[in-house]
Amino acid sequence: MEPAGLERPILAVDVVVFSVSRGRLRVLLHRRGQDPFSGAPALPGVAVQVDETLEDAARRALAVKAGWPPDAPEDLYVEQLATFDGLYRDPRGRTVSVAYLGLSPARSAPVRKLFWELADGLGRGSLPFDHDRILETALARLRGKLRYTNIAGQFLPEAFRIDELQKVYEAVLHRSLNRTNFRNKLLKLGLIEQVRALSEAVGKKGGRPPHLYAFAREEVEAADRDFL
Amino acid sequence: MEPAGLERPILAVDVVVFSVSRGRLRVLLHRRGQDPFSGAPALPGVAVQVDETLEDAARRALAVKAGWPPDAPEDLYVEQLATFDGLYRDPRGRTVSVAYLGLSPARSAPVRKLFWELADGLGRGSLPFDHDRILETALARLRGKLRYTNIAGQFLPEAFRIDELQKVYEAVLHRSLNRTNFRNKLLKLGLIEQVRALSEAVGKKGGRPPHLYAFAREEVEAADRDFL
Repeated sequence: MEPAGLERPILAVDVVVFSVSRGRLRVLLHRRGQDPFSGAPALPGVAVQVDETLEDAARRALAVKAGWPPDAPEDLYVEQLATFDGLYRDPRGRTVSVAYLGLSPARSAPVRKLFWELADGLGRGSLPFDHDRILETALARLRGKLRYTNIAGQFLPEAFRIDELQKVYEAVLHRSLNRTNFRNKLLKLGLIEQVRALSEAVGKKGGRPPHLYAFAREEVEAADRDFL
Repeated sequence: MEPAGLERPILAVDVVVFSVSRGRLRVLLHRRGQDPFSGAPALPGVAVQVDETLEDAARRALAVKAGWPPDAPEDLYVEQLATFDGLYRDPRGRTVSVAYLGLSPARSAPVRKLFWELADGLGRGSLPFDHDRILETALARLRGKLRYTNIAGQFLPEAFRIDELQKVYEAVLHRSLNRTNFRNKLLKLGLIEQVRALSEAVGKKGGRPPHLYAFAREEVEAADRDFL
């Protein structure tokens, strides 16, 4: 028999929402209104209630803690990132946190109590709890998924120019890419495809309209390559 | 202010341990000794104690619930898989389970209270709780990682023949692979490299010794390819 264990770990969620704006990857932070670490910028998070799923808790964290409009989180892409379980990660007592990764289109405006911080500007020690580590893990996941999935589509409208897509990749990877290689590679992987130009009128007025592309699939999933 | 919430979800771990033996992928199950689902085969799991990490709880689940020798779990490769949070996944009350993926070398003998079941033979509905879904997620993770990491090394001794490695891949992927393509692809990815033949004596006695290979790195990590 297992010991009944009156003491249980507290279960929480923390959310890392990224967006790309003005060519830079940014992460959503809020300023803590209470101790511990009152006044410090931190990832939005809440304790999980007994009757809500983890993803609902993650969306609630954005709405309640960070002032994200209650209807907006429905549009936000979120996926489970990993569960963080350091014994002393929270001074209030043993708390295990399930972290979520969220991606927001650039058009999302900053809202009450929230601000967007440059993701690459936050070194170790700039966030309370183990939020540095959570952010680092989120960044590694996003960079990894950029290589073999269509996840970048979450930052963009349905149809986009190749240079818009490249700017997203460059912002996330934090380095420059060769335009021709970039386009060829993504086409070869079958991740993107060329779509009809948005407006024929543009073409008639001012020369050729720009080529537009779209991700081949809407759901976030891996490319179809099968290496063996 | 957040509601204090006297009721909290229970936090548990469940462990999916895979092994390859006689050319088939097998999963470690134990027979439940208590309700709910007493007598049913299930993944080993325990409730997380307030003073242990999740990985320690996962190793404890193998030792306590499934009779795995207490010293053996130290050798077992484990990684966090995902956290399962269905509101009604456990009839005893709201329980969130952090699942771990474990890989065991084929030489591991089955032990007390444990048995190895064919991973592909377990359809939906053959395991209690949401263990079918956890198993399915573990299988997808393992198959995915086989494509771009050296994770297959966890099933094998340090040096191996290419046909031994291929058998592991075929067992996990549940299909046949072309031998020449297989070897070339893994060499090209830089995942494996040829090592010195184990014994010169074999070569003198009975013709050429078989080529031996090893994974280029010991830690489980992705291949070095950088597609952009």
